[in-house]
Amino acid sequence: MPQTNPRVDPLPRPRLAPIAAALPDTVPFTGPETLERRMGQPFLARLGANESPFGAAPAAQAAMAAALSAGWKYGDPENHDLRHALAGHHGVEPDHIMVGEGIDGLLGLAVRLYAAPGAILVTSLGAYPTLNYHAAGFGARVVSVPYRDNAEDLTALAAMARQHAAAIVYLANPDNPMGSWHSAEAVETFIDAVPTNTLILLDEAYGEFAPQGTLPALDTSRANVLRLRTFSKAYGMAGLRCGYAIGDRQTIGAFNRVRNHFGVNAVAQAGALAALAAPDHLADVLARTGAARTRIAQIATINGLRPLPSATNFVTIDCGRDAAFASGLLDALARQRIFIRKPMAPGLDHCIRISVGSDLELDLLTQVMPNAIAAVPAD
Amino acid sequence: MPQTNPRVDPLPRPRLAPIAAALPDTVPFTGPETLERRMGQPFLARLGANESPFGAAPAAQAAMAAALSAGWKYGDPENHDLRHALAGHHGVEPDHIMVGEGIDGLLGLAVRLYAAPGAILVTSLGAYPTLNYHAAGFGARVVSVPYRDNAEDLTALAAMARQHAAAIVYLANPDNPMGSWHSAEAVETFIDAVPTNTLILLDEAYGEFAPQGTLPALDTSRANVLRLRTFSKAYGMAGLRCGYAIGDRQTIGAFNRVRNHFGVNAVAQAGALAALAAPDHLADVLARTGAARTRIAQIATINGLRPLPSATNFVTIDCGRDAAFASGLLDALARQRIFIRKPMAPGLDHCIRISVGSDLELDLLTQVMPNAIAAVPAD
Repeated sequence: MPQTNPRVDPLPRPRLAPIAAALPDTVPFTGPETLERRMGQPFLARLGANESPFGAAPAAQAAMAAALSAGWKYGDPENHDLRHALAGHHGVEPDHIMVGEGIDGLLGLAVRLYAAPGAILVTSLGAYPTLNYHAAGFGARVVSVPYRDNAEDLTALAAMARQHAAAIVYLANPDNPMGSWHSAEAVETFIDAVPTNTLILLDEAYGEFAPQGTLPALDTSRANVLRLRTFSKAYGMAGLRCGYAIGDRQTIGAFNRVRNHFGVNAVAQAGALAALAAPDHLADVLARTGAARTRIAQIATINGLRPLPSATNFVTIDCGRDAAFASGLLDALARQRIFIRKPMAPGLDHCIRISVGSDLELDLLTQVMPNAIAAVPAD
Repeated sequence: MPQTNPRVDPLPRPRLAPIAAALPDTVPFTGPETLERRMGQPFLARLGANESPFGAAPAAQAAMAAALSAGWKYGDPENHDLRHALAGHHGVEPDHIMVGEGIDGLLGLAVRLYAAPGAILVTSLGAYPTLNYHAAGFGARVVSVPYRDNAEDLTALAAMARQHAAAIVYLANPDNPMGSWHSAEAVETFIDAVPTNTLILLDEAYGEFAPQGTLPALDTSRANVLRLRTFSKAYGMAGLRCGYAIGDRQTIGAFNRVRNHFGVNAVAQAGALAALAAPDHLADVLARTGAARTRIAQIATINGLRPLPSATNFVTIDCGRDAAFASGLLDALARQRIFIRKPMAPGLDHCIRISVGSDLELDLLTQVMPNAIAAVPAD
């Protein structure tokens, strides 16, 4: 068709900075709520986000409820009381601790601080995707090491960090999405094998669930090790957004250069403080998590699938077939209104990942699983 | 003394990326809690952080209390319900709205997205310091325009944005720390005078307090205008961390490239949603804020100081002497356990800034002010 109207150039618009301009304009993370809106109905079992259905300690919930009436005040930008309580809890000094908006927020800040554009960040292929999201977001280059026997390959990670003189190497112990873990001794050997000027982000989000001997003793004299912990998992406060880093004084202090100082929710600070003082609830959560994990493993086994050992609040299950089958099973469970997730990377993608749930949720899983497996389309 | 031991070089440690390395290693923001810890006792009147002592709507507090028991779940990363409610409230489409961790968080993301290292960001000399903090944090260069007659100088800001082909220009209307405001018409003229490829961050944190005719009509067709709003001020939820931006679809969508997708607290989302549906409480807060502002102005006048007109929840007061006097008065009030703040920039620093308070707090201010003024050391 002939173009009769003169072409009108649109007005120039603000230009994205080069790093941002290179990023995809799509939403990289899909929450269960988004899936529910697409389905037009809620999930009956929420077993995909590695949350704790056993909730926060009653004392923490009470402390948060009490904090609401003072919610008109900005939170303490130093997070003083919580930092001091955490220091006491871990036997370190308060200036070895930085509180942030969940581990996600702290990971972003750490990448920003220590990975200049073009710097190398080493991680495992299929490990926590938010880390890769932050790396891309600050222009760092990700170098990935494959998993080995369903676990992060410590030797290969350290070798790759050395080979590339990496700015950052990331290790989750216990690991998500595989649920596997290394001994404290193995992690210490790994730390020794990484150059001292490579920052080690040691993500211990699932640390409370792990067997004794999994978490290395805290050593805040290591300038290049940041231990990352959270109130989102065992403490049952994922929606509140509170995590923390433990490390060398100067490495920890650097967060003050760039963090959003008033960013940690006042209610979360109150809740975390109370949660820390409720060890009985934590013990109960660990016991219930262990029982739910056992039940998920049984459901898998009964249905001819292979549950992997787990030191977390989820069980990763080898479906014994290809990635298409695992994806098909995830979809079939979603159609039965059960939300789970699955690893997506080659080498892991034949697995599905099921988070611990309430008894009722696992009853439903028990009931639905045989039909869901049967409903997966043949290759 | 002779050095007998051989000097041991410390092991190399992780190096900060160049932009982070150039930033000061100090905490740039001092909260009232920090001052209280230094004093060894709490303030009796908290009149320095522009918070709302009238609190969140009872319905919002109830909604947040109800949301606590589901705090073990991550919040909806799309902030779907809140975005849709805000869209309805403002008569725009949901994809013209981005919810974030307060305006502070959104400002940081906007600077990161639109100001490459070395890019120019134009603001007023003495305007919101968090903006300058983010600019430094992402390596942008700040060019400042002096205030004129205690207000941001719209003509000079726009001229400076044009002259420097600025990436970003920042305007708070109403203004903090001066409390002054421009008419919607003047702001629209300003917008027209700024290049269409300069992003205008129009911070309307205090917008709800302003007289009719202060906020321009929303025009989401302007690709270079982001309107920033918050639940921290009139809605009384500063500690909960929830703000939002309104703007062009593509400009708003860009936040998805870099934001912390699960970062907005689930409890805050529930509270904001309920707060929006409680217009009576908002009206009551606005009335009480106006009455408190009048009272603060009277206290100033009675004591021979000159209150400036305010469209916010604070009153900035010209002390009629130099900056040292204003600082001395702030210190004298602190010794009487009254927390206020003051502008620090040349041209504004002869003023103090007093946020609205409860009746009891203003009773104390009434009582203490004459002695505090008398206690300021002579030059």
